[in-house]
Amino acid sequence: MSHKVRMGMIGGGSDAFIGAVHRMAANLDGKIELVCGVFSRDSMKSKASAKELSIENSRAYGAVDEMLKAEALLPENERMQFVTIVTPNYLHFEQSMQVLQHGFHVVCDKPVSLSSDEAKEIAALAKEKLLIFALTHNYTGYPLVKQAREIIRKGELGNIRKVIVEYTQGWLTDAIETEGQKQATWRTDPEKAGISCCLGDIGTHAENLLEYITGLEIDSLCADLNTFVEGRRLDDDASILLRMNNGAKGVLFASQVAAGEENELKIRVYGDLGGLEWLQSSPNELLLKWKTEPMQTMKAGVDKAYLSTKALQASRLPGGHPEGYIEAFANIYKAVADQINGIKNCEYPSIEDGIRGMVFLEKAVESSHKGSIWLTL
Amino acid sequence: MSHKVRMGMIGGGSDAFIGAVHRMAANLDGKIELVCGVFSRDSMKSKASAKELSIENSRAYGAVDEMLKAEALLPENERMQFVTIVTPNYLHFEQSMQVLQHGFHVVCDKPVSLSSDEAKEIAALAKEKLLIFALTHNYTGYPLVKQAREIIRKGELGNIRKVIVEYTQGWLTDAIETEGQKQATWRTDPEKAGISCCLGDIGTHAENLLEYITGLEIDSLCADLNTFVEGRRLDDDASILLRMNNGAKGVLFASQVAAGEENELKIRVYGDLGGLEWLQSSPNELLLKWKTEPMQTMKAGVDKAYLSTKALQASRLPGGHPEGYIEAFANIYKAVADQINGIKNCEYPSIEDGIRGMVFLEKAVESSHKGSIWLTL
Amino acid sequence: MSHKVRMGMIGGGSDAFIGAVHRMAANLDGKIELVCGVFSRDSMKSKASAKELSIENSRAYGAVDEMLKAEALLPENERMQFVTIVTPNYLHFEQSMQVLQHGFHVVCDKPVSLSSDEAKEIAALAKEKLLIFALTHNYTGYPLVKQAREIIRKGELGNIRKVIVEYTQGWLTDAIETEGQKQATWRTDPEKAGISCCLGDIGTHAENLLEYITGLEIDSLCADLNTFVEGRRLDDDASILLRMNNGAKGVLFASQVAAGEENELKIRVYGDLGGLEWLQSSPNELLLKWKTEPMQTMKAGVDKAYLSTKALQASRLPGGHPEGYIEAFANIYKAVADQINGIKNCEYPSIEDGIRGMVFLEKAVESSHKGSIWLTL
Amino acid sequence: MSHKVRMGMIGGGSDAFIGAVHRMAANLDGKIELVCGVFSRDSMKSKASAKELSIENSRAYGAVDEMLKAEALLPENERMQFVTIVTPNYLHFEQSMQVLQHGFHVVCDKPVSLSSDEAKEIAALAKEKLLIFALTHNYTGYPLVKQAREIIRKGELGNIRKVIVEYTQGWLTDAIETEGQKQATWRTDPEKAGISCCLGDIGTHAENLLEYITGLEIDSLCADLNTFVEGRRLDDDASILLRMNNGAKGVLFASQVAAGEENELKIRVYGDLGGLEWLQSSPNELLLKWKTEPMQTMKAGVDKAYLSTKALQASRLPGGHPEGYIEAFANIYKAVADQINGIKNCEYPSIEDGIRGMVFLEKAVESSHKGSIWLTL
Repeated sequence: MSHKVRMGMIGGGSDAFIGAVHRMAANLDGKIELVCGVFSRDSMKSKASAKELSIENSRAYGAVDEMLKAEALLPENERMQFVTIVTPNYLHFEQSMQVLQHGFHVVCDKPVSLSSDEAKEIAALAKEKLLIFALTHNYTGYPLVKQAREIIRKGELGNIRKVIVEYTQGWLTDAIETEGQKQATWRTDPEKAGISCCLGDIGTHAENLLEYITGLEIDSLCADLNTFVEGRRLDDDASILLRMNNGAKGVLFASQVAAGEENELKIRVYGDLGGLEWLQSSPNELLLKWKTEPMQTMKAGVDKAYLSTKALQASRLPGGHPEGYIEAFANIYKAVADQINGIKNCEYPSIEDGIRGMVFLEKAVESSHKGSIWLTL
Repeated sequence: MSHKVRMGMIGGGSDAFIGAVHRMAANLDGKIELVCGVFSRDSMKSKASAKELSIENSRAYGAVDEMLKAEALLPENERMQFVTIVTPNYLHFEQSMQVLQHGFHVVCDKPVSLSSDEAKEIAALAKEKLLIFALTHNYTGYPLVKQAREIIRKGELGNIRKVIVEYTQGWLTDAIETEGQKQATWRTDPEKAGISCCLGDIGTHAENLLEYITGLEIDSLCADLNTFVEGRRLDDDASILLRMNNGAKGVLFASQVAAGEENELKIRVYGDLGGLEWLQSSPNELLLKWKTEPMQTMKAGVDKAYLSTKALQASRLPGGHPEGYIEAFANIYKAVADQINGIKNCEYPSIEDGIRGMVFLEKAVESSHKGSIWLTL
Repeated sequence: MSHKVRMGMIGGGSDAFIGAVHRMAANLDGKIELVCGVFSRDSMKSKASAKELSIENSRAYGAVDEMLKAEALLPENERMQFVTIVTPNYLHFEQSMQVLQHGFHVVCDKPVSLSSDEAKEIAALAKEKLLIFALTHNYTGYPLVKQAREIIRKGELGNIRKVIVEYTQGWLTDAIETEGQKQATWRTDPEKAGISCCLGDIGTHAENLLEYITGLEIDSLCADLNTFVEGRRLDDDASILLRMNNGAKGVLFASQVAAGEENELKIRVYGDLGGLEWLQSSPNELLLKWKTEPMQTMKAGVDKAYLSTKALQASRLPGGHPEGYIEAFANIYKAVADQINGIKNCEYPSIEDGIRGMVFLEKAVESSHKGSIWLTL
Repeated sequence: MSHKVRMGMIGGGSDAFIGAVHRMAANLDGKIELVCGVFSRDSMKSKASAKELSIENSRAYGAVDEMLKAEALLPENERMQFVTIVTPNYLHFEQSMQVLQHGFHVVCDKPVSLSSDEAKEIAALAKEKLLIFALTHNYTGYPLVKQAREIIRKGELGNIRKVIVEYTQGWLTDAIETEGQKQATWRTDPEKAGISCCLGDIGTHAENLLEYITGLEIDSLCADLNTFVEGRRLDDDASILLRMNNGAKGVLFASQVAAGEENELKIRVYGDLGGLEWLQSSPNELLLKWKTEPMQTMKAGVDKAYLSTKALQASRLPGGHPEGYIEAFANIYKAVADQINGIKNCEYPSIEDGIRGMVFLEKAVESSHKGSIWLTL
């Protein structure tokens, strides 16, 4: 008899990192209930996962098709309302299409597909079916990322000239894909990850964050993708020169062989009036740099009168009570739940972000293959 | 048919900050379900809150007594299993005793009572009834706080000599209790908050963190409590000299009139081999300072092989994906849920922490009243 | 034929850390020339040091008296104009009196003497002789310390309520005085260091910084001095509760057994409008914390229009070109040289600072000996 | 009769920022005496500057030629021994050649010339004359920069793969060259600054730091130089993709229109064993990042046993006593003075660094002009 929004899940078995993240994000605000899932293609394993997750045995499925059909037969107020897809990249497209075809909303892990054409197909189908398609570009869920966007939108930094966005990790420094590390294995396999490892996995987060915060689009790029680990079949590092559609210039770089780095996503944007800086590992601070006035540090928190409405709505706690990755992630789920419940204009990354990401990725790979030539997106 | 642990709640109506925190903490890991509550003494308001929280109307109660009796009549597999108490301080004792008397486990917000005698009564009753009594000294839920404790326990800092623990906030800089700010109003009212505002509210967190991390006890103290805001009836600031039971010395200070500070809880501990430093607003870093070797920065994350088992168990994400206040808080709920489910040796702050806190508070207030004399706890 | 101000030195032989610091500070701005000195009581050693320092052999003396007489016989435009005293504490008083008696200005390392009575004698003599007596409380030479003082003076933080000043080091964690470490040996010897080690050596810097920045005086204190290292004859740690002459309260703590700390001098001041924070190891940043506005970070630099005149005069470089300890120290020497050259109102710490420091020290030691009683300065 | 090394200066009149920096750097250690100079082409102005600097009137010259001839006539033990050139870029070549021709050592501000051909001419002449030619790439004078170099040299980071070096400033955000700002005027004038503003002025520092620390050379580059301020005749921003001679890849970017930035020079280097990070505005910290061990923070200081000999020799103070820009700069002067005094193997940036810088600059400008093509240095 709960009125929570009902979620189904594809993927996310017990040892999958990202599945657990999605579940915590969906749980956090008490607005969503996980009611069913295909946690494994092995029906027994799926049921075992369901048991751990306090899901009824009958709603643990062994195939996507099976779930879609069985759930459709349930009464409307029991049936799942949306499906979260947390499988490896190469399955996203097919599963998204299936779920949409059966009339359920989708929350999909990124990247949305293996190509921009696929992403466009998803967009067309979601539009036709009037269904929500949310993509978990979770970093835009942080309150101060929303604040940064507002500051730039309101012109407080002036005309944007220079952007620097970077995302460095070190976890692929060694060839751990040859040692059975599951996350590494599929991410470095072209058949499962697509045309790119590093740039697809984290570079697209950087691209999405950049376009989200600045409100600008990347106009053209000149890329250099690298593979440092011997035998690796996809890139593990990338550096890209950028030109934005307003004439701003910049740099985007990403690496998964930056030994010793954890997960450093950082953006700096400079206009002719000032600059801003945000770093994901200190997400509750936003630095504002001015030409003649002292630097300001905005802090996240529901008690901050200087924050914009959107930043406040993305916050749960007063300043000094740090919110983190799961909270930002949960803002996407909260927005999807609210939208399903009929609230208008909820903000979450959509299939349009997915298309942009795939176009960016395809052009970057092409530019690099052709010797770092400038290509227009 | 869910096998989640079933929680009832006392307090936590829609505009209560701390009630929402407890709910998010309980939700996060998907192990607990909020099934009933007394969200207000006004039955209609309680039902309105329940509706927002997706709780059945019939299980929204208007009185603690009513809830305890009605839930007891439900089948064992539906009935609430524990009660979370998130009311103002002065109600904790009576409500805790009531809940325990009726045979339910308790999670209670701190401070546990208005006096150490009351706390001891609770301890006796919980012991007699073989019930869990968890106190939400949430800051000890952080992974790196657990790591700090382990480091000291293993003797890596040597013999502990010097401790510095501080907790500064600025939100009571002005007399907002005279302007109807609800949180401030009861906290500065002796009848609702007890013998102290600042030291009871946040100083006890500092005391608890200090004793938790060092494994030492405060032996004696010499305190100076202050009230800076005119007309305020309780302390809004405190500075205390400390002697620990091993001979270490130190300082504890807390303030709610440190204008411009958010919620800065920080601890430093020095032994004869090295020191450590942890700051709640950067909770995913633990600084280790050595006499001749470079300073080390431990980071939180499930992928950190150098962390202790307890620190790893308190983590959900790999390094660089910041976890925060809610996650630390949720570790208490997870431990309680696990313990109810029969897992042994789950770690959460208990009524013993509550007794220590109240003794500390009483002695500090007495010392200050007597002109900063040394008193033994 | 140089028109630099001519300096003599007492102490500061080749292996003396602080003597070299004073020389670099005096050299930096090209306004002072070291022309003579008693670098050792052994005349041969003194001459050896002089050679290394490019000083004429004839002006390397073996005794203070000898230097004072010989220099007095030189033509006025060759003779030294002031004397810098960089010997251990117990010699400061006698040497200062000697130098003043002979009509030379003095720059003296702190503490100025072994007692407040001695300090007052020096004050009286300097006043009678109309001579400069500068005390190298060097931390007040930092531009942003001057800025902090101005901000408080102008009332921007409102009425000051709470002060926290701390100075932690770890270098005396072990009994290095028993291993022949020269700096440690005299500092822990009551006959050479006076009534205190830690509090005299660094606690007085904290006290001076506090009174300088706030413009307030310590009215009374309640102290706990500790000796952690077995066999040590003076304190190596101290914690003190403070009451200021305007009613503000606070804490001052200092330690030389905070293992792993280098030289962490930090001050925080809170008024009813906002707070500020400055940390010596990041001297070019001053944090300003406001009740409702974002935190500001002032930076040092001659190009910062928001800095006060005094802060700008104490700066040599544009922002982002870090100035440090020697530069701050050099500001005292520059002020002394300017004053000798007839410029008015040059700002440097004086014998009055020395008297305050000694009174503070005496009262703190007495309070601690009497079991942490409150004593008025 | 002083035995200090005697320095002459070209440029550096009273309002020249960089001239004063050079003088403070030369003064600091008491090993160098400024004895003469051409502080202006106007003889009267030159003499006025000399007076302020306590230099004999007779040794203040109005022309380089005049100084070189007059000094040559002085007795060897009075005559200047080296000349510091602190004029705008376009004069460096001619003046350097003149000074060398007359047999004096040179310390020259960077960039050394307007072209690599000129730099090579200087190299040839200095070699022929057996004279010192030091170039003030001052950032390599920092102790922890030397330490970083040693760490990489010893292989502690393994095989270097990824480098990121950046230098951002904001001072040219507006067209201040049109408002008479002297520093901006010549730097943005092709006739005085050469082929580049931003990349020549600060990008070459980044390039030099990168090659110094890694011990690698830039093999090829792909550059995008930008001019954001309307009417400006040279670049004020640059982003460059790099390939190093060992196969490492990376990014170098520099900007003088990063509004709100002061002088942020930062380098990150990653090998297959770990990474390091150093930031000029916090010069006394060096971060070492490891794959599985906690991050380490090395600190500067003469008391740090873990530092290499070269890092220690470049330090003057114990840890926690911050050294800054002038101290690093002074290390170049100290090395030159020592070398003149006959000490062997003193380390300072040389004309070889100047040649590398000019080649880098020429190739970057060419690459950008040709649409960001890869060019080999």
